[in-house]
Amino acid sequence: MQTPYYAVIFTSIKKENAEGYAEMAERMVELAHQQPGFLGVESARQEIGITVSYWKSLEAIKQWKQNAEHLVAQQLGKTKWYESYKVRICQVVMSYEL
Amino acid sequence: MQTPYYAVIFTSIKKENAEGYAEMAERMVELAHQQPGFLGVESARQEIGITVSYWKSLEAIKQWKQNAEHLVAQQLGKTKWYESYKVRICQVVMSYEL
Repeated sequence: MQTPYYAVIFTSIKKENAEGYAEMAERMVELAHQQPGFLGVESARQEIGITVSYWKSLEAIKQWKQNAEHLVAQQLGKTKWYESYKVRICQVVMSYEL
Repeated sequence: MQTPYYAVIFTSIKKENAEGYAEMAERMVELAHQQPGFLGVESARQEIGITVSYWKSLEAIKQWKQNAEHLVAQQLGKTKWYESYKVRICQVVMSYEL
């Protein structure tokens, strides 16, 4: 991935009883892979969950947010699964690795 | 936190035997809190580790990268603890939450 590209940092605290969450999370990753402009996704959860997805453009992020099936998941997230969450839209300006 | 501010997305895969890692990771969080321009940090690890730290400016990130004790940790990370890692420096342009 060549900079600049975009990242969505999604941090969340799940409710104790989040029935149906795991299946939906898996489905959303699968669905994201099919979106135009999708570059990748990384995820880990302990006390909090952090999912970072990477995108070619802000437009691609906007399209993903409006994906019909994703809209259903977002609604369930708000009402059923998450105690709280935060979404940060970022421009990746530099990267390096080992 | 009002946008724009900055995020460092640090993703890593640890080696199986990463002796001394947990103590150092804890110390780095403590140390980061004392750095000028530090806004916060969030962390989770499963197959991969994701740590996102938040900063007021690119200059604050640069200063943190050059912190003497942090330089020692970075060197140990490279040689001893990490199988691989990636650092992404980002400008947070928008955020919303539940």
